[in-house]
Amino acid sequence: MNAPATSFRRASVAAVSGLIADCLVAAGISREDAAAVAGLMTEADLTGADGHGVFRLPQYVRRLRAGGFNKAPAITVARTAPASALVDGDNAFGHLVVKRAAETAIDIARDTGVAWVGVRRSNHAGSAGLYAEMPVQHGMVGIYAAVASANHMAVWGGKELLLGTNPLAIAVPTGAGPMVLDMATTIVSYGTVKKYALQGLPLPEGWLIDRDTGEPITDPKRSGEGLLLPIGGYKGSGLSLMLGVLAGILNGAAFGRDCVDFNADDTAETNTGQLVIAVDIARFVPLDRFVAEVDRHIADLRATARLPGVDAIRLPGDRRRDCRVERRQAGIPLPPALIAQLDALAGELGVTLLFER
Amino acid sequence: MNAPATSFRRASVAAVSGLIADCLVAAGISREDAAAVAGLMTEADLTGADGHGVFRLPQYVRRLRAGGFNKAPAITVARTAPASALVDGDNAFGHLVVKRAAETAIDIARDTGVAWVGVRRSNHAGSAGLYAEMPVQHGMVGIYAAVASANHMAVWGGKELLLGTNPLAIAVPTGAGPMVLDMATTIVSYGTVKKYALQGLPLPEGWLIDRDTGEPITDPKRSGEGLLLPIGGYKGSGLSLMLGVLAGILNGAAFGRDCVDFNADDTAETNTGQLVIAVDIARFVPLDRFVAEVDRHIADLRATARLPGVDAIRLPGDRRRDCRVERRQAGIPLPPALIAQLDALAGELGVTLLFER
Repeated sequence: MNAPATSFRRASVAAVSGLIADCLVAAGISREDAAAVAGLMTEADLTGADGHGVFRLPQYVRRLRAGGFNKAPAITVARTAPASALVDGDNAFGHLVVKRAAETAIDIARDTGVAWVGVRRSNHAGSAGLYAEMPVQHGMVGIYAAVASANHMAVWGGKELLLGTNPLAIAVPTGAGPMVLDMATTIVSYGTVKKYALQGLPLPEGWLIDRDTGEPITDPKRSGEGLLLPIGGYKGSGLSLMLGVLAGILNGAAFGRDCVDFNADDTAETNTGQLVIAVDIARFVPLDRFVAEVDRHIADLRATARLPGVDAIRLPGDRRRDCRVERRQAGIPLPPALIAQLDALAGELGVTLLFER
Repeated sequence: MNAPATSFRRASVAAVSGLIADCLVAAGISREDAAAVAGLMTEADLTGADGHGVFRLPQYVRRLRAGGFNKAPAITVARTAPASALVDGDNAFGHLVVKRAAETAIDIARDTGVAWVGVRRSNHAGSAGLYAEMPVQHGMVGIYAAVASANHMAVWGGKELLLGTNPLAIAVPTGAGPMVLDMATTIVSYGTVKKYALQGLPLPEGWLIDRDTGEPITDPKRSGEGLLLPIGGYKGSGLSLMLGVLAGILNGAAFGRDCVDFNADDTAETNTGQLVIAVDIARFVPLDRFVAEVDRHIADLRATARLPGVDAIRLPGDRRRDCRVERRQAGIPLPPALIAQLDALAGELGVTLLFER
């Protein structure tokens, strides 16, 4: 769980969500769309995915104003086969597009047992786990993958930024709520590197290498010169490539050198690709038996003998579940620099400040 | 590519395949089933997956004789929904069961765009890449995952052998044949550790840790005391867990503490779980456009500027493609100890020796 610095202030879920929605409306999107995006961004903050929550609001508003997002999109769903669909996001907010894809996958899988829904012409959609989790509420397995919105990795052995951290999320129901694996194909996300750099902390070896020499970069000031390292060396590189092919090329979306760096460019259409798979568990094994068996094995894994120095076994999704409970009650912790940014943004847009809500 | 030791002898594809089939028939399975298994095992050898080829024959014959495999299985396919099926392997050879699952997935996906076929009551099926590759011949993406046939990993932080190397394979068509990612969720397979141990080579740090202390094991003589390490630390542990849930628990197959160690136990039914997904590419983007785009990006990745000391960029499946070409022509290289084992086996079963074929 996050241990926020003491200088952090806590904002209530309602305040964060309200600020996001009001800012997005002020920047030109519909109240309905703004509410949907605000809900998902706040959920990212609640579940500890701080880099995908309100932290992103200034960038999103900048992009809305610059014309990089379609403010009044017509998202369309083509049902391309009984168990497949292709969603054209019409350059909307990625959250709106992927939410639509997940809903479509759930609807289809109810009839066909399994659904694979591809997405093109989307944008950055935030926390991967949110979308994998959606089918779980319907007794389904959820899987999500995406082409990341900037390339921070090279192909294994290369030095050019041609691959992204392309995330994979898999979620299944358990008796204690969804178990969610949400992983980048790199050792750490670029957001984590930026967090270390902002705080001036040295980077552990194994995260980042120098783009020219291949030597480790540990000096946080040099993080901009680096390549993120994939998990398992060539394996993570291969997995990132394959997820990029499935979420990008298969959908007619951008991949490799065609990817737009969403953080650096506020106007170009990114043509981001994503995919959502839903699997209706009851078509394989009764849902209650599945949950009971998963729970039995989870209990066994948690009770396993531990290596020296390990205080507890943590399973995928434990942190997001703990964070959600704690933050729903205590509020979402925000660093002073972010609060200042949000206050400036609210002032500019003429909406109520976060801590006056 | 493998550089076999000079003491290795080369056997032709026909000789290897013929030996496998004859031994399996002599051990009691039908000529048709034996031919199918021999074809897949030889393909594993051809593509460089040496630990899944003729190397496994003595163990498989031992298991057949001990009653651990069903020699005359009735593999059944339940079509559980329009896009899903569940294959009951009736404790057959895993190769036969997963081949049937892949054929089923291809058939279903032709109609529904996507198919997810689960497998229960199967066994060790050898090389993961073979099954992911099958849908590719039909213009489809193939995905395969399995619960490994022995636990060589602990959950992250634990010290008990409760997780397997649970592999994931993803294959897509390219202009030069399938691009196949075939990866264990551990840094290396247990087979690689055994190969180092056999040759007395020190194990690189990062592969294996001591089950009690968590310290690296580099002494090959101590490999039996170790835990394999997952790729990306807790990420690979989480991925192995999730693949185990999807390939095992979802299908009513074994997982975790219920897994039978297939290498140590020749009689107990393993109830191995696997899954095959097929995705009909043309339901998303025209197949020729998909292949052209994948080829364009592959060319771009291969031509990228390289880090110092890197002689070429290798992409998923390059080694298997090169191996297949070289070995089809020059034969499959086999170490002397394996040849001696195979000769003894052939003598026992009264079939023609490998190098008399």
